[in-house]
Amino acid sequence: MDIATIVGIGGGFTLMIVALLLAGSHGSGQGLSFGQFIDPPAAIMVLGGGLCVVMTSVPLAKFLTLPKMILKLIRNQSDDLPSLVRQIVTLSELARRDGLLALERHVPELTNHSLAIGVQMAVDGTRTEIIQQIMRTEMKAEEARHHVGKRMFDMMGRCGPAFGMIATLLGLILMLGNLDDPDSIGPSMAMALVGTLYGAAMANMICMPCAEKLAYLSHQEQLSKEIVLQGVMAIQAGDSPRVVEQKLSAYLPASVMREAA
Amino acid sequence: MDIATIVGIGGGFTLMIVALLLAGSHGSGQGLSFGQFIDPPAAIMVLGGGLCVVMTSVPLAKFLTLPKMILKLIRNQSDDLPSLVRQIVTLSELARRDGLLALERHVPELTNHSLAIGVQMAVDGTRTEIIQQIMRTEMKAEEARHHVGKRMFDMMGRCGPAFGMIATLLGLILMLGNLDDPDSIGPSMAMALVGTLYGAAMANMICMPCAEKLAYLSHQEQLSKEIVLQGVMAIQAGDSPRVVEQKLSAYLPASVMREAA
Amino acid sequence: MDIATIVGIGGGFTLMIVALLLAGSHGSGQGLSFGQFIDPPAAIMVLGGGLCVVMTSVPLAKFLTLPKMILKLIRNQSDDLPSLVRQIVTLSELARRDGLLALERHVPELTNHSLAIGVQMAVDGTRTEIIQQIMRTEMKAEEARHHVGKRMFDMMGRCGPAFGMIATLLGLILMLGNLDDPDSIGPSMAMALVGTLYGAAMANMICMPCAEKLAYLSHQEQLSKEIVLQGVMAIQAGDSPRVVEQKLSAYLPASVMREAA
Amino acid sequence: MDIATIVGIGGGFTLMIVALLLAGSHGSGQGLSFGQFIDPPAAIMVLGGGLCVVMTSVPLAKFLTLPKMILKLIRNQSDDLPSLVRQIVTLSELARRDGLLALERHVPELTNHSLAIGVQMAVDGTRTEIIQQIMRTEMKAEEARHHVGKRMFDMMGRCGPAFGMIATLLGLILMLGNLDDPDSIGPSMAMALVGTLYGAAMANMICMPCAEKLAYLSHQEQLSKEIVLQGVMAIQAGDSPRVVEQKLSAYLPASVMREAA
Amino acid sequence: MDIATIVGIGGGFTLMIVALLLAGSHGSGQGLSFGQFIDPPAAIMVLGGGLCVVMTSVPLAKFLTLPKMILKLIRNQSDDLPSLVRQIVTLSELARRDGLLALERHVPELTNHSLAIGVQMAVDGTRTEIIQQIMRTEMKAEEARHHVGKRMFDMMGRCGPAFGMIATLLGLILMLGNLDDPDSIGPSMAMALVGTLYGAAMANMICMPCAEKLAYLSHQEQLSKEIVLQGVMAIQAGDSPRVVEQKLSAYLPASVMREAA
Repeated sequence: MDIATIVGIGGGFTLMIVALLLAGSHGSGQGLSFGQFIDPPAAIMVLGGGLCVVMTSVPLAKFLTLPKMILKLIRNQSDDLPSLVRQIVTLSELARRDGLLALERHVPELTNHSLAIGVQMAVDGTRTEIIQQIMRTEMKAEEARHHVGKRMFDMMGRCGPAFGMIATLLGLILMLGNLDDPDSIGPSMAMALVGTLYGAAMANMICMPCAEKLAYLSHQEQLSKEIVLQGVMAIQAGDSPRVVEQKLSAYLPASVMREAA
Repeated sequence: MDIATIVGIGGGFTLMIVALLLAGSHGSGQGLSFGQFIDPPAAIMVLGGGLCVVMTSVPLAKFLTLPKMILKLIRNQSDDLPSLVRQIVTLSELARRDGLLALERHVPELTNHSLAIGVQMAVDGTRTEIIQQIMRTEMKAEEARHHVGKRMFDMMGRCGPAFGMIATLLGLILMLGNLDDPDSIGPSMAMALVGTLYGAAMANMICMPCAEKLAYLSHQEQLSKEIVLQGVMAIQAGDSPRVVEQKLSAYLPASVMREAA
Repeated sequence: MDIATIVGIGGGFTLMIVALLLAGSHGSGQGLSFGQFIDPPAAIMVLGGGLCVVMTSVPLAKFLTLPKMILKLIRNQSDDLPSLVRQIVTLSELARRDGLLALERHVPELTNHSLAIGVQMAVDGTRTEIIQQIMRTEMKAEEARHHVGKRMFDMMGRCGPAFGMIATLLGLILMLGNLDDPDSIGPSMAMALVGTLYGAAMANMICMPCAEKLAYLSHQEQLSKEIVLQGVMAIQAGDSPRVVEQKLSAYLPASVMREAA
Repeated sequence: MDIATIVGIGGGFTLMIVALLLAGSHGSGQGLSFGQFIDPPAAIMVLGGGLCVVMTSVPLAKFLTLPKMILKLIRNQSDDLPSLVRQIVTLSELARRDGLLALERHVPELTNHSLAIGVQMAVDGTRTEIIQQIMRTEMKAEEARHHVGKRMFDMMGRCGPAFGMIATLLGLILMLGNLDDPDSIGPSMAMALVGTLYGAAMANMICMPCAEKLAYLSHQEQLSKEIVLQGVMAIQAGDSPRVVEQKLSAYLPASVMREAA
Repeated sequence: MDIATIVGIGGGFTLMIVALLLAGSHGSGQGLSFGQFIDPPAAIMVLGGGLCVVMTSVPLAKFLTLPKMILKLIRNQSDDLPSLVRQIVTLSELARRDGLLALERHVPELTNHSLAIGVQMAVDGTRTEIIQQIMRTEMKAEEARHHVGKRMFDMMGRCGPAFGMIATLLGLILMLGNLDDPDSIGPSMAMALVGTLYGAAMANMICMPCAEKLAYLSHQEQLSKEIVLQGVMAIQAGDSPRVVEQKLSAYLPASVMREAA
């Protein structure tokens, strides 16, 4: 588990409050009122509007995976690639020594789902091209599904500033229609600007970096599946364990492999 | 049918009204007048301008497919892929047992148009490369046509804010030319800003997510045609039903296949 | 000929005038003066500036093709693809019945230039790979030239808002330097904003959709040439007319082919 | 030599002065002072800042090629492709008649450097694949180097508006800190806006179209090298001069070849 | 080592101070106070916010490589490609004269890590395809890792203006809530604008050009590895030193090779 995502989002909002306290105490002697920054209509517009945009742009079933994706961002897990490489090298040693069929009883021990399936297919004697086609298709299809997930956050990020502006415009138009009380212009305008603030914060502090993180996690999963695919191919081809290790280590930075050794 | 698109668009505008009611009641004791937010010239400029841009950028025949595309967004249908996979697996069993020609009398039962055509070509003894070339060409050509559809919504989405600004500029220029009556400045400016609001709402709440949804639907249709193509190839090659199932299931998430089983 | 492009541009400006008349009559009792919206320096800056940018970015000879491209947009022609497909199918029937050489006397009747050249090369006995290489090279080279044409409109579209802003800045700076007469501030500011209006209108109502249309027309030409190329290949390979028809119809939507039949 | 680039940039600034003179004479009776538009700090910020950004983003050696690239833009030269095609066709006639070795004494006459090298390699009996690999590598490497050149202008173009805004912000902050003299607000604000004007002008009138032109020139050079490569291949393969001409003419528009004939 | 990056960033800020001094002395007689431009809350928001966004979007381990990447930008090193080419040519001469195995004792002298590994694999008799697959995989994987590094600076660059705007909005909202003291409006607004200034400066003067520079350095490393790969292939294939030189020189501009000779 990696806490960077939560720390990053939480840290951003903490810094915003620190900046406010500093600016509030600095600018004038009087206390800072956080109430100035709480505007429920703007929050409804920015957050609700963003969710509506996402709902419009994907099927309902996809939209309902949003909580699962947020969970994924919080759990923030990715495979331990060096140990995956070592595991495959060990399998290749077994296959060299005892034959491909000897791997069958190790399949249930494999925690990596793709590796288990790939090795099972190899043990079953499925032809190399078919194993490769099936595993590649799975990778491509999964990548496309992950891409839709990333797009949902992208959409919210791209729309955030626009919905912030819409909230601000609603406030400005209401204010301009009632200019009778000059004293209320300042606070009304302040309230209108809070919408822009919400939009910018939601887009830049949450949605955009989360979309980026999902892309990163998806890339890591693809990398892990690529290593599994190349490993299964190499085992089936009967490559020597040293060659298998060289082939698979090439996917990882030299420093990581050295550390892991 | 999937109601997400309609719910998403309707929900966005409902939220906007809720936000207005909240802001109106909150900001001042007096009732909120929705008339402040109705500006026919701005609506003409934003909606009509957007349609004119689309008309300029595609041939008339393409432009006239806009209503059909809106219907498609509302119907929001996509193939049931797991049952498509099962259907192809059943066909492959038949072909293995009774020969390729036995499929001919099942062709009229096939509801999926591409599948019917592909199986018919296979039954007719068309060479594999030619079946593949024809089906790939159809997929590419259809994708290009869908892309033009998506571009129409993209264009309206990209131009929306600009036409909103144009409406606002027209209002501002008229107002600045008649500054004699200071009391009318506020309402005139409010009215001018309504144009920007319309542009932002049209672009972000309707056009952009609809373009995204069209891209999603197009991707799903491509996926369905790819499954049909791979299925027809596999049947013609005489693959065992189990291999056909493995090959085609790879396009779908594991969870979906398990559920459907 | 397709009038969509002219109707689209003309319609946009008509709508702008309608919106102005509505807004003018609505906002105040006094008549609307169109003179407020006419600003020669801004027009010089926006239109002239855009043309200068295009001139800077391409060679003179390319720049001078602008009028030809505007004519192309107005003529707005694209090949009748279903009849092209039928023509090639007829040629393939002739070739099957009377031999490839029998096509020679039909070459002068072929109105499609690429088809005539392709069939002539096939009749001359040029090798398939060479025909394919030559026709592909022509397609690629033509696409690159069309792309430069599209880029010219793109450049004007991208620069439009910037030149509008430059015109507005020139007006604002002049105004701010002479604040002595408060009565002139409103009209001066109105005049300055006209520049922004011009820039937004030129970019969004003319240049951007025209660039898009040129891309569409170029895509159609490529499609037509691809059909010709595949047709010539198939005729030379001696495919049966039914296969030729299947291969080429795949480029067109099913509905279009049915209608045309 | 093609004067379009210089005329384009010069024309843009001339139009700006014309627009100013028109606006100045129109807006008020008093003479227009160009001094209002001269702001050394803003010029330092916009031009110097842009150069610093470029210096940060490439190695010093690359940065120092900027003057050479400006010269290239001014000289604005590209190969005469039709005469290049004719030259290669002539070489292929010689090679057919007198053998490949007969080309050796024509090598020194070849003004096109790539052609000379390619023909020399062919005469030396270098294998086709090696000639092709070497010439393709050169093309790719040169394209990558040209791309870095284009990026330098792109960077300045992208940063221009930002540095204009920075200059304006510096001016505004200074002004807002000294609001004591109301008479100086107008001129100070005018001066601040000059920064935005400089940024927009530099980006849109100079950097962006120059980057585009460099991309165009690079594309032309690639085209010329591709023609040379295909020509050398065809000569080495012993193609008939008529086929060589057909192959190479395909890279040029039909009209150009006809004119040149 | 190349000092361009440091000089570029330092130069940008120096120019900003020069512009300020000029503008300050020019605008009014009184001394310029740099304190006007120092706003700790804005600095916290812009710099801290940017770092939080990066932390959110990558795993912690990746985030912690930021200092190493800054060091890399400062050291700003790239391989001396002409000497690398000469070194490989020398190796190919040795291999031709004394056989491939004779290279083994030169491996420890090779300072280029990839070259050492590649030559070692060739000496070990690893098959060409496997050497190529391993070296290509390493290049692809390294490129992907570099890309993540570049993305971190990109993210900060893209978010910079947004965080600047957030800082400004916080300041404006605070100010608009306390409009009682008209004298404080100017300085408060000035202070609020400092946030926008920080955001624009961080994004345009630091993050964006640094991301570009990282992309450049990554491209250079890829080029160096490509030369090594082609060199090892050519040595293993037993190409003559002259062909090796021709093949590898093609990656470099002609002028550089001539100078180095």
